[in-house]
Amino acid sequence: MIIVFKQKTSEADVNKVAKNVEDLGLSTHIVVGEEQTICGIIGDTTKVDPKSLEVSPVVEKVMKVSEPYKLANRAFHPEDSIIDVAGVKVGGNHMALIAGPCSVESVEQVTEIAKAVKESGANMLRGGAFKPRTSPYSFQGMGTAGLDILVEAKKATGLPIVSESMDAKYIDEFNEKVDLVQIGARNMQNFDLLKEVGKRCTKPILLKRGLCATYEEWIMSAEYIMASGNPNVILCERGIRTFETYTRNTLDLQSIPVLKKMTHLPIVIDPSHAGGKWWLVEPMAKAAVAAGCDGLMIEVHNNPEKALCDGPQSLKPEKYDELLKQLSGIAKVVGKEL
Amino acid sequence: MIIVFKQKTSEADVNKVAKNVEDLGLSTHIVVGEEQTICGIIGDTTKVDPKSLEVSPVVEKVMKVSEPYKLANRAFHPEDSIIDVAGVKVGGNHMALIAGPCSVESVEQVTEIAKAVKESGANMLRGGAFKPRTSPYSFQGMGTAGLDILVEAKKATGLPIVSESMDAKYIDEFNEKVDLVQIGARNMQNFDLLKEVGKRCTKPILLKRGLCATYEEWIMSAEYIMASGNPNVILCERGIRTFETYTRNTLDLQSIPVLKKMTHLPIVIDPSHAGGKWWLVEPMAKAAVAAGCDGLMIEVHNNPEKALCDGPQSLKPEKYDELLKQLSGIAKVVGKEL
Amino acid sequence: MIIVFKQKTSEADVNKVAKNVEDLGLSTHIVVGEEQTICGIIGDTTKVDPKSLEVSPVVEKVMKVSEPYKLANRAFHPEDSIIDVAGVKVGGNHMALIAGPCSVESVEQVTEIAKAVKESGANMLRGGAFKPRTSPYSFQGMGTAGLDILVEAKKATGLPIVSESMDAKYIDEFNEKVDLVQIGARNMQNFDLLKEVGKRCTKPILLKRGLCATYEEWIMSAEYIMASGNPNVILCERGIRTFETYTRNTLDLQSIPVLKKMTHLPIVIDPSHAGGKWWLVEPMAKAAVAAGCDGLMIEVHNNPEKALCDGPQSLKPEKYDELLKQLSGIAKVVGKEL
Amino acid sequence: MIIVFKQKTSEADVNKVAKNVEDLGLSTHIVVGEEQTICGIIGDTTKVDPKSLEVSPVVEKVMKVSEPYKLANRAFHPEDSIIDVAGVKVGGNHMALIAGPCSVESVEQVTEIAKAVKESGANMLRGGAFKPRTSPYSFQGMGTAGLDILVEAKKATGLPIVSESMDAKYIDEFNEKVDLVQIGARNMQNFDLLKEVGKRCTKPILLKRGLCATYEEWIMSAEYIMASGNPNVILCERGIRTFETYTRNTLDLQSIPVLKKMTHLPIVIDPSHAGGKWWLVEPMAKAAVAAGCDGLMIEVHNNPEKALCDGPQSLKPEKYDELLKQLSGIAKVVGKEL
Repeated sequence: MIIVFKQKTSEADVNKVAKNVEDLGLSTHIVVGEEQTICGIIGDTTKVDPKSLEVSPVVEKVMKVSEPYKLANRAFHPEDSIIDVAGVKVGGNHMALIAGPCSVESVEQVTEIAKAVKESGANMLRGGAFKPRTSPYSFQGMGTAGLDILVEAKKATGLPIVSESMDAKYIDEFNEKVDLVQIGARNMQNFDLLKEVGKRCTKPILLKRGLCATYEEWIMSAEYIMASGNPNVILCERGIRTFETYTRNTLDLQSIPVLKKMTHLPIVIDPSHAGGKWWLVEPMAKAAVAAGCDGLMIEVHNNPEKALCDGPQSLKPEKYDELLKQLSGIAKVVGKEL
Repeated sequence: MIIVFKQKTSEADVNKVAKNVEDLGLSTHIVVGEEQTICGIIGDTTKVDPKSLEVSPVVEKVMKVSEPYKLANRAFHPEDSIIDVAGVKVGGNHMALIAGPCSVESVEQVTEIAKAVKESGANMLRGGAFKPRTSPYSFQGMGTAGLDILVEAKKATGLPIVSESMDAKYIDEFNEKVDLVQIGARNMQNFDLLKEVGKRCTKPILLKRGLCATYEEWIMSAEYIMASGNPNVILCERGIRTFETYTRNTLDLQSIPVLKKMTHLPIVIDPSHAGGKWWLVEPMAKAAVAAGCDGLMIEVHNNPEKALCDGPQSLKPEKYDELLKQLSGIAKVVGKEL
Repeated sequence: MIIVFKQKTSEADVNKVAKNVEDLGLSTHIVVGEEQTICGIIGDTTKVDPKSLEVSPVVEKVMKVSEPYKLANRAFHPEDSIIDVAGVKVGGNHMALIAGPCSVESVEQVTEIAKAVKESGANMLRGGAFKPRTSPYSFQGMGTAGLDILVEAKKATGLPIVSESMDAKYIDEFNEKVDLVQIGARNMQNFDLLKEVGKRCTKPILLKRGLCATYEEWIMSAEYIMASGNPNVILCERGIRTFETYTRNTLDLQSIPVLKKMTHLPIVIDPSHAGGKWWLVEPMAKAAVAAGCDGLMIEVHNNPEKALCDGPQSLKPEKYDELLKQLSGIAKVVGKEL
Repeated sequence: MIIVFKQKTSEADVNKVAKNVEDLGLSTHIVVGEEQTICGIIGDTTKVDPKSLEVSPVVEKVMKVSEPYKLANRAFHPEDSIIDVAGVKVGGNHMALIAGPCSVESVEQVTEIAKAVKESGANMLRGGAFKPRTSPYSFQGMGTAGLDILVEAKKATGLPIVSESMDAKYIDEFNEKVDLVQIGARNMQNFDLLKEVGKRCTKPILLKRGLCATYEEWIMSAEYIMASGNPNVILCERGIRTFETYTRNTLDLQSIPVLKKMTHLPIVIDPSHAGGKWWLVEPMAKAAVAAGCDGLMIEVHNNPEKALCDGPQSLKPEKYDELLKQLSGIAKVVGKEL
């Protein structure tokens, strides 16, 4: 961490600030420049709040040198983490191929879709039982009954289940019925929920990126879960909010190589929510695989026109089947198994 | 709601889509243009999901005509709502003057600040007991002990208490100890929490705008609370995330006249969190009052250099005192009491 | 175009607005809803400014139904445009492989790089002679001398030349020396320049997307060039500005399928400027090809550490060579020649 | 400037990079931390491109300590600049009150509006003769004939003229006819134009902020003009592009105190273009004055419903008159003359 002092700060004032830092058990190193003086802080600065230094009237700004995350940091864990989801490996060269409807609607619907996507090559089944909706008047999901339907579909196909938990009170139920617990974009900084799934959730977590979360904030949310006791976190990019409104969100595929550099956790791409249009899913899924992602989460619905939620972004099973065939060619080029 | 069909859609296909809409109990009206045909939907479209129409291969897009919110809509409630917070009125020409430290640290700290800001003219005391922090390694607040300290400060000054609740499990405690319950920016779309405070919270809610929430999404979150049973919602603008990083966030003061048009709920401005720098608080507080806000929430700390959280954005009590003096001149010009 | 009236607008007022529209030679169609009345406008609305209707006190908003661009619109030109750049075809299944240094520095530098990238498979040479720089104190490019160096490199390799023109006064010189004239991101809405290159430039134009330009604004800028007389426009995505600052900009690969739908013009991706880091170029170039782009513009420098401009985002020639080998595998999967 | 090295960089590699910096005539100072080594650069770093350092494989990142602008920097020019526009002072406690139609339409229109706004207290007349429009099919302004009309209005009222120049070829004409030359948001980084108005324009420049320009980029564009020879630059905030689309742009009033800190140049606010709606002008104009701006540029039209451009954001003269009356009360509170 580096403290930049205002121009013309006296030596006495600089020393006073440095002394405060040293009182925290850290070392300092002062560099007097022509126009400005700076002070380098040496030691473990994770617990130093740069804002508490910036408040001094002689401090211009405080700049971070090292990352504030440790458990998720690739620097301290150079190998790719490989997460086991009920026997399906994610990370390294193993791809998560998660598919299924946005919302669980009935046993027949989910089982039909599950069988179809398994046939095509999917290795996990997604389905929303608890749905975060912008409007209180929209369909809010089937809740517990929806989870039970997913369990039925798992029995029929063997596919591990991915579903979103919106509240800590459901953790026991999710531990019992779900194999990969999704934390949604709108809850990415619901810190109480992060701590609870870190402490009490026995299954891996799929942590979606918030709509306007930076890479660092996103990793810090993973760090919350890991620091609370659950090291099994998979990150999921699902589009960020920008000024462009033609698409629902802007899919940020640079996140793949950037996160690979910052963290050892696997990264999965959700092209369905990002674009909000089914015809964007195919090209963006191909792009994501070419860029080196560790998995894809794709909405598939047997009857999108009658879907209770997000029909326009769902592929029909036959389209999903064609897509996976094309993806396997690309996966080969980039050295992944699919 | 208006359905825009793709060019060259056949009359039969248009009629089929219109028929589906009519099956929902709504009327339709088809207009055949030179290049494109559109279909107007007449009736209560609140419960129609535009996406379920967009999924049709002959539909280009669906455009909303009327707002999806009802209870919060000024069109159905033309007068300003005036919310009573333990006897302090907010809305109309009554201003909420909320001040206090970012975090509760000790009885002495809070009481000293509370007395000072009351003396200057503040009519509510803020203080964070449960703190949402980006890093799991940062100070997370004193929790219940912090709430008890706020209760002490209320006894000493009579100022109603404003504090943030991050989880539904604390609602009973907040009902007992707090007068205005804050839902933070990061929980603005924590829908389970919104429903719970709507159902079970007996106190008014201060709903902060999410970092990248549109006006409509923000009002829809207020609608969640209102539709669940709690009509007493105050909105709080605290800056949005943009490309500019010199300031912590960009304070959006256009939100004041826009929200006054869209909704009857009061709107309070938090210039401390928006800019993240104490020297931005004074000019932005003045601007907010000039633009017609219904209140200000300002961080005041007796010793910002030692604050456990957000010191750089806190005013000292004497600065707050000067500020209120200047604000009262501006308030007079725009017809508000202060 | 659809006019949405305010609630409770009288029939007389609605008719008055409709009459104004009819006076412009268009037809209208009024639909009376339960809460709101709308008026559809039928005919060629390209020249109607929605804002001139919104100014009426009884109008709530005006919504566009059809796109404001005609010449660039795929609806009126369903086949892909194939642009000929000095014999190199771009569009359809033909890929532009543009490579070269950010700035022209010397004959030796450019010729060495040009030979290397040609050997690897590049079919056009890029090089900046006039450089747009944020600071007046940064290197501004070699100007005319730089163009002459590019001409030398073309003689040595046969590669057509791509270079940026920042001002209309250079058009004659660019017509003589350059094969594909780049309009930079910062000039995307320099409308006088767009009109001039439309009227007087005899070479195709490579139009970069502005840092915060919507798809529609970008296509409207292409429309400016086309409407002024030059139909040969290639679009180039180079990243948009978002809240994320770890990367220079956010590369928007959804632009590929979206633009393919909106327009018949080819789209080229520039992964070097988007990310600003050389190690992002390879994964993003692969992703762009997988998503169906019509070309790539990539910065290659033989000595990035000594580059006068944008060294950190440049590949070394040997890295570029490896990259093209991998891209050809992906191109095959998506049906492109490379 | 500070170089942060990658973890585990050898002492030899650190010294090699430091040596390169010293070869540029600067001093270095190396600080060895527990996890990372940093190197402070001492001396005038204005001409060092941080990117040329970042390209080294052992460098993690380069952080700037001092601002890259000098002429516009308040640190080197602590007093407010006061710019003289044909006798009207702007800056210090002198306010520019610029008003007039978006587009010049006729002598009668402009003269009528000019007389009215002068009567209300305006001290400059704005009017667009050359109009930047998103669509090539929209009205592009009257051009030279429009400037002549403005000259007529100046004869009738004495008000100095403000108008936008979009191309360097008009500079002589603007020098003759216009008193304050506006560079529009879309040309803020048209560096050739900035250099030309710096060199050849004899009148002060009103430099609008680009739609997604940071404060620093905006000041750097002012620095271009100043470094080219014209020290008389007034900055104008007109809203930035964000995710919110209800308003045309988001007015950033934090720009006022921030720019006052960064630069000595005056700052004027344009609430008409920011919001795009006339009913936002009054509250935002009040807010801007309360926040300490040095002037307001407001669109006034005698017949907004018939305006050829931007009618919905124009005030009628009587509304403008009322507004100035209210503003004068606020100006008094903040110590400005109006």
